[in-house]
Amino acid sequence: MTHSIANISGVFTNGIEAGIKPGKKDLAFVYVPNCVGAAGVFTLNKFQAAPIQYTKKTMKRHLIKAVIINSGNANAATGEAGLKNAKRTAAKAAKILGISANEVAVASTGIIGVPLPIDTVESGLEALLRNPNAVDSEAAAAAIMTTDLVPKHAYAEAKIGKKTIQVAGIAKGSGMIAPNMGTMLGFLATNAAIDSGLLNEVLKEAVDESFNRVSVDGDTSTNDMVLMFATGEHRFSLTSKTEMNQFKELVLSVCRDLAKAIARDGEGATKLVQVEVTGAASRADARAISSSIINSPLVKTAIHGGDPNWGRVAAAIGKTPGAKINPEKIDIMFGNVLVFHHGAPVAFDRRKAVEAIRSETVEIRVNMNISRGSALAWGCDLTKGYIDINTEYT
Amino acid sequence: MTHSIANISGVFTNGIEAGIKPGKKDLAFVYVPNCVGAAGVFTLNKFQAAPIQYTKKTMKRHLIKAVIINSGNANAATGEAGLKNAKRTAAKAAKILGISANEVAVASTGIIGVPLPIDTVESGLEALLRNPNAVDSEAAAAAIMTTDLVPKHAYAEAKIGKKTIQVAGIAKGSGMIAPNMGTMLGFLATNAAIDSGLLNEVLKEAVDESFNRVSVDGDTSTNDMVLMFATGEHRFSLTSKTEMNQFKELVLSVCRDLAKAIARDGEGATKLVQVEVTGAASRADARAISSSIINSPLVKTAIHGGDPNWGRVAAAIGKTPGAKINPEKIDIMFGNVLVFHHGAPVAFDRRKAVEAIRSETVEIRVNMNISRGSALAWGCDLTKGYIDINTEYT
Repeated sequence: MTHSIANISGVFTNGIEAGIKPGKKDLAFVYVPNCVGAAGVFTLNKFQAAPIQYTKKTMKRHLIKAVIINSGNANAATGEAGLKNAKRTAAKAAKILGISANEVAVASTGIIGVPLPIDTVESGLEALLRNPNAVDSEAAAAAIMTTDLVPKHAYAEAKIGKKTIQVAGIAKGSGMIAPNMGTMLGFLATNAAIDSGLLNEVLKEAVDESFNRVSVDGDTSTNDMVLMFATGEHRFSLTSKTEMNQFKELVLSVCRDLAKAIARDGEGATKLVQVEVTGAASRADARAISSSIINSPLVKTAIHGGDPNWGRVAAAIGKTPGAKINPEKIDIMFGNVLVFHHGAPVAFDRRKAVEAIRSETVEIRVNMNISRGSALAWGCDLTKGYIDINTEYT
Repeated sequence: MTHSIANISGVFTNGIEAGIKPGKKDLAFVYVPNCVGAAGVFTLNKFQAAPIQYTKKTMKRHLIKAVIINSGNANAATGEAGLKNAKRTAAKAAKILGISANEVAVASTGIIGVPLPIDTVESGLEALLRNPNAVDSEAAAAAIMTTDLVPKHAYAEAKIGKKTIQVAGIAKGSGMIAPNMGTMLGFLATNAAIDSGLLNEVLKEAVDESFNRVSVDGDTSTNDMVLMFATGEHRFSLTSKTEMNQFKELVLSVCRDLAKAIARDGEGATKLVQVEVTGAASRADARAISSSIINSPLVKTAIHGGDPNWGRVAAAIGKTPGAKINPEKIDIMFGNVLVFHHGAPVAFDRRKAVEAIRSETVEIRVNMNISRGSALAWGCDLTKGYIDINTEYT
C-alpha cells in the first residue's frame, strides 16, 4: 500500500462519490481530532474563491481540525451565496464530527461560476463522515482529482532528536476543463508536536520551494490551497536549530515529491522537466530565470520533440525581465552534457544530449557564473494532448 | 498590387534566392539613397545577435541609407566571427552601392549557432544589387520570411500640412524552426523630411504600442529589429504639435497593421485575438493585465475551442503580478457581449458570445473600473499546429 497521510496515527481520511461529479469520487475529508497545530498557504490570484476566503478567515482565529474537499465544483465567482455555501459545508461537517464549525476548513476544485450544489454536498457529508475514523488515503486522493491522471501521495520520515517524525501528504494538480479552473490542492500531516505559528513558517517556506516552483502552463488558479495538520504525537526540540532544520527538510521533501508528481502529470505531459539555475546574481534572479525557462513554450515543445535546443534555452534566459545576465558567462547542460559554454555553443555528443532530452525526467542545468544564487523549477513538455484537453473539452 | 514600401518614391527594394536557404528567397535589401533620417528599435533580449550589435553601433554614429536582410541564418551565438561576417556583409553591399560601409545596416533571421555562409551572402549580394533601383516590395517581403505563411505589407497616407505624407513597411513574424530563433523584423519608410533624432522618438513610441504588444508565444528573440528610413521628399512642420501627432498616428497605424498581421500569422494560429483593457489604475497596469490575458495558454486554447470562457480571462487578470485589481469591479466582454459584470458572471446570449469567439478576429474587452489606464495587445489562438511546427521540425 502507498504510504500516505493515513499512515500517520491520528489522521483520518476518506473519499466517496457524493454525486457532484457523476460516476466519480468527489467528496473527501481529512480529520485530525487531536490537532495541535495547523497551517495554510493560499493562492495569490486576486480572484479568490469562496472556500479560500472562508478558510483563510477561520484559520486566522481558530485551530482547524478538519478539512472537507470537493471536486466537480470550484465554488468560485459565486458571490455571497458561494460564501454561504462554504460556511454551510463546514457547519454540516462540524455537526456530524461533533466539533465547532470554526474548526473545519473547506476546499473546492472544478467548474466555476456555477452554484455549489449544497444539498448534494450536505447529503454527501452524511455518507462520507459516517465513519470519521476511516483511513483510506487512496479514496481521499482520488476524490480530489480533476483532470489528474493519477492520485498523488508522498511520505517521508526521519529521526529528529529521539523520535521518528513523519510527514505525509496528498495533492492534486493543475487541470482545466472549461469553464473549470485548474487548481493545485495539497493536504499534509505530521505526527510532530508543533504549534500553528511555527508550522505556518515551515509550510510557507516549503511551499515556496516546491509547489510555487511548478509550472504546467504558467497559469495560477483562484482556488489553490495547501493545508497541514500536526497531531502532536511526538516532540522534537522546536528551539534547536538543527532539529528544526531537519523538520523543515522533511516537510520540503514531501512538498517537492508532490510538486514533481503534479508537474509530471501536467495536462498532456509525457515527461517531467527539472530546471536548475546556479551561479545567478541572487536567489530572486535564479528563480526568475528558471521560471522563464520552464514556462517557455519553445523550450517545452523542443523537449517534446526530443531536441537538445540550447538556442531556445539561451533565449529564455536572455528575456528574463530584470535579471542580471552576462551572456558571455553562461553555461547550459542537458543532463550531464555541456552544450553551451561561456555564451557560445560547444561541440557535444549529440546522441548523449538527445538521450538526456528523451528520458522520462529531463534535467536542464544553467550556470550563470555570476554569483551564488540558485533555484529549481519543475514543469513538463508541451504536447498536442494539452491542446486537446484545453480545446476540445465541450 | 499591394501598397508597400516601394510605393514611396526614392525607396528601392528587392529580394532574391541567394542559396542560404535552398529553393526560397533569402536575401533582400531596402535602399534609400537620399535618406535624410533613419531610426532603429532593437530586441531587449540580452543575447543579441551579431547583426543587432553591428547595426546598433553603426546607427549611433552614422546615417544609414540601406539595410541588407538575410533569412535562413540568424548569425546569432556566432561570436567574433559572426560580428566580422555582419561587417563583411555591410562592406560588400556598400561597395556595390557606392556608399560607405557605415551607411549599411544588416539584419538576419534563421538558424542560430551556425556560421553565416558569407561567401554565399557575398555572391548573392552581387546578384541582388545588380539593379539597385528595383522596386519589388513583394520579393523583399518574401525573402525575409521564415515560418511566416504570408508576406506582410502595410501602407498609409495622410495629408499633413499641405503635403500627402506616406508611411509604409514590410515585416516578418515570430517563427521557430530549431535551432532557429523566432524573430520579428520590420522595415519602414516615409516620404517625410524628418531627422534621425525625431524619427527615433516617433518609431520607438509606435513600436511600443504595436510590435511590443504582440505575443505569439511569449518568447522574444535575439534578432528582433525595426528600422525606418525617411526620404525627405515632403516637409511638414516638425514643431507643430498637431502635425507631429498626425505623423505619429500614421506611423502607429502602419506599425499596428504589421503587428496584427504578425499575430494573425502566428505559428499554427487560426485567428487574431485583440485584448483591450480599459479602466486600469495606470497604463503600466493595463499593459501588464492585457499581456497576462494574451499570453495565457488557457485563454488561447479556449478561444481555439470556440468557448466564451470568462473564467480563464478572470484568472489571467487575477494573476497579473503587481497590478492593482479589484475583483468586484471587473467587467469582461467577448466582442460586444458582456459575460462578466462587476466581478460576477451574468446571464448572456451564449450563441452571440460563441459567435464572437468563433469569428476570425476575436475581441476580448476588460474594464477594470478603477481609473483610466488603457492598453491593447494582440495575439493568436494556441493550436496543435503550433505544437507541430515547434516539435516535429526535424
